[in-house]
Amino acid sequence: MKPFVVSYNLEDMNINFQGNKVVRRYRDIKNIFLNKDEELEKENPVIYEVFEAPVPENEGDLMFLITILYPGKVKGEFFMTKGHYHTVENTGEVYMGLRGKGLILCQTKEGDFEAVPIEPNKVVYIPPFWAHRSVNISDEPLVFFAVYPAHAGHDYGTIEKTGFLKRVFSKDGEVSFVENK
Amino acid sequence: MKPFVVSYNLEDMNINFQGNKVVRRYRDIKNIFLNKDEELEKENPVIYEVFEAPVPENEGDLMFLITILYPGKVKGEFFMTKGHYHTVENTGEVYMGLRGKGLILCQTKEGDFEAVPIEPNKVVYIPPFWAHRSVNISDEPLVFFAVYPAHAGHDYGTIEKTGFLKRVFSKDGEVSFVENK
Repeated sequence: MKPFVVSYNLEDMNINFQGNKVVRRYRDIKNIFLNKDEELEKENPVIYEVFEAPVPENEGDLMFLITILYPGKVKGEFFMTKGHYHTVENTGEVYMGLRGKGLILCQTKEGDFEAVPIEPNKVVYIPPFWAHRSVNISDEPLVFFAVYPAHAGHDYGTIEKTGFLKRVFSKDGEVSFVENK
Repeated sequence: MKPFVVSYNLEDMNINFQGNKVVRRYRDIKNIFLNKDEELEKENPVIYEVFEAPVPENEGDLMFLITILYPGKVKGEFFMTKGHYHTVENTGEVYMGLRGKGLILCQTKEGDFEAVPIEPNKVVYIPPFWAHRSVNISDEPLVFFAVYPAHAGHDYGTIEKTGFLKRVFSKDGEVSFVENK
């Protein structure tokens, strides 16, 4: 494999990362939200898109991607990603904010929880063993760049069973954390 | 270790990455250039600075940093970094251009060579086993963000002995590659 370069442009949201593209619509992920929304069920909008680079999933390689998480709420709960642990748990991840404003919810299987801000000019480090989910708390698309070991894999199942310890709602125009029961 | 966030601002070049900082001045690295420059020897300017995040050098972690490579030439040869292989050779690296314009020179021990452009809105992938050196071919600081496995290590010695296969000069206002003999 040779070195290569890919490009992106946030002004026209043209992201040429040349790899796999993942699109998650409301109906694909509606179960991650506390409540159901009939309007969103009908419209089935895109909640987020992931543009991956064409890196093989080999140990030693690094995958990188750009995520666009659109603004919106499901009965007051901010749009968010599914969130996951890495299958190979001893693997970290680096996020760089490119546009919009959000939170990265992080937690461990031991019950630690952190919410870390992400926005332009900020870089977030998610150490090995921490699950991570992105939440868009702004009125514009939240766009961020991420890098992780290409062999890390995605364990979505654990989060599907337990959820994250807290949910993030808009309440009277403020960001409000709600314990997940 | 908990998740954390660091910040940077390119308008005032304020980079709060909270980790180790490396400064390379002309006299520290003059041997990497083909010719000597008496003016630079006297002034001993900073050629580049590296701002690292406070990530431990453990397998599974990812180091990230911002490099500022200043504009300038040594008898026509563009300012550049020392360049290195990773000590743990099966480790890739991701570069994102933030400001300025440059080239990433990449080569393998088998004699492959590539020069890949780096600038804002571009992301460069350097696969495992490829040495890499940055060259500033613009008139402003070249600033880029880099991520690599934290246990990778730096093998500068191999490049000190062999150099890169090509050098990059300014010739009649154009970028010119010269075989390294």
